Amino acid sequence: MYDYSQLEALSAVIRTGSFDAAAAQIGVTQSAVSQRIKQLEERVGTVLVKRGQPCSGTEAGRRLATHADQVRLMEKALDFGLGSPLEPTPVRIAVNADSLATWLLPALAEHPDFLYDLIIDDQDHSADWLRAGEVAAAVTGHPGPVQGCDSYSLGAMRYFATASPEFMAHHMPDGPTPEAFERAPSMTFNDKDRLQSDWAKAVAGRPVTLPKHRLASSHAFVEAACLGIGWGMNPESLSRKELASGSLVQVAPDAPLDVPLYWQVSRLTAEPLLPLTRSVMRHARSMLIQEAE
Amino acid sequence: MYDYSQLEALSAVIRTGSFDAAAAQIGVTQSAVSQRIKQLEERVGTVLVKRGQPCSGTEAGRRLATHADQVRLMEKALDFGLGSPLEPTPVRIAVNADSLATWLLPALAEHPDFLYDLIIDDQDHSADWLRAGEVAAAVTGHPGPVQGCDSYSLGAMRYFATASPEFMAHHMPDGPTPEAFERAPSMTFNDKDRLQSDWAKAVAGRPVTLPKHRLASSHAFVEAACLGIGWGMNPESLSRKELASGSLVQVAPDAPLDVPLYWQVSRLTAEPLLPLTRSVMRHARSMLIQEAE
Repeated sequence: MYDYSQLEALSAVIRTGSFDAAAAQIGVTQSAVSQRIKQLEERVGTVLVKRGQPCSGTEAGRRLATHADQVRLMEKALDFGLGSPLEPTPVRIAVNADSLATWLLPALAEHPDFLYDLIIDDQDHSADWLRAGEVAAAVTGHPGPVQGCDSYSLGAMRYFATASPEFMAHHMPDGPTPEAFERAPSMTFNDKDRLQSDWAKAVAGRPVTLPKHRLASSHAFVEAACLGIGWGMNPESLSRKELASGSLVQVAPDAPLDVPLYWQVSRLTAEPLLPLTRSVMRHARSMLIQEAE
Repeated sequence: MYDYSQLEALSAVIRTGSFDAAAAQIGVTQSAVSQRIKQLEERVGTVLVKRGQPCSGTEAGRRLATHADQVRLMEKALDFGLGSPLEPTPVRIAVNADSLATWLLPALAEHPDFLYDLIIDDQDHSADWLRAGEVAAAVTGHPGPVQGCDSYSLGAMRYFATASPEFMAHHMPDGPTPEAFERAPSMTFNDKDRLQSDWAKAVAGRPVTLPKHRLASSHAFVEAACLGIGWGMNPESLSRKELASGSLVQVAPDAPLDVPLYWQVSRLTAEPLLPLTRSVMRHARSMLIQEAE
């Protein structure tokens, strides 16, 4: 088996970005940290840390550090009272930006015993992080379960296509026709974001090529829509106030897009994460659209 | 010289992510797009497009596409009335997340003749995008000017270290001592974010190793601070309401951190971007802290 004091040093260097900070965090000298990582690199036969400002993990290094964090999380469930209760456990979670912006944080806040490392990625891609073993859990659009994971249905996030009234009058005077879609600037979160083009295709009745602004921020999406920069799919809960006040209108009335979301958690660490899973379920169920039972 | 119909096709494929969409956007057949890119790849002697879902540019492909976009932007300044006024010009800008969350969008909204491609990066790193020739302009912490760029001082973004009152009572009952910093969970945007550690070092009087949550969202930072997840540096303008209502308090009273920001714009495209530069200056000057004149 591995020497876990070496793995712990590796994880701390990658997390803190320096040998110095890692040494302070685990309470040994910097030369002990250097030596542990050197020994581990010799054993594995490959470089694990890219030395720099900050230091970062190589692919192999990140995999080993993730493994170490996972083992640490599993040890937590043993509950023999080892380890300091003052020292929170790092846990890495992939999450889509709109969940982070709307309902997830209050669930995380109920568990001060974790240090969260949130990887923000599209709901269609956050399951990839689970598959790669890079995260312990994910909020994802993938019903799964991904191999080795448990999957829980959270309900659906409701989106409305929204724009300012001035934008609609200027760019879509005849409503959301295919021709209007191909001229009116839309917004996209990043290359992975298909919400706008999928919704426009459904409404227009054929695939349309959208001119796109690109901006990767849930709140900036709402603000940019209000300012008339473009139209975009905004979560209902993030644009409710603007829709009520009239600073935003729907691009096509009564055409919501419901995106089902799932909480997937690696079975290896499902037990220590169970209290978190319960909080996530409770908050999601009160904030997302639930199917009629 | 290059064949700009080939470069235009390359830029469209990288921007839209598919040969199909690129063809629709520039109004030629898909086979014409394929052929132009093939010819360009043969001429340059390297692969320019990674075929996939979506297609993306190789490093060489992205450099050529950025060059094409730059030339297009320069053509705009010639103002011979060529090109359709209906067709907005793509412009790529690097910006720090907190500027995007607070003051930048109203400036961008004044120029509907652009399609914005916003690269969100730390203010200490957004100048790298200019240096690499990947963006036409940047909001950056680097006074510069970066070679080939003009630099304009925008004023400073004021940050306060903030946390919930409950967080302070629990984690920092004796205030922000070095020992409290090393136990109380902080937040960091990403590995590049040094605001918290720099500020804590100044307040504690010595370098401290902060336990860190990682979450890359300006609004989530404020919400997580309110929920007691951790303390973090929040822009004054984004946390003013919470500080006034008492849901947030300052970790150390009267210890703001002012981060000077600059607008740097490539001289190649400074002229067509001048109206945008003027809007950016006007909005920044009313929203950021200006030095006494």
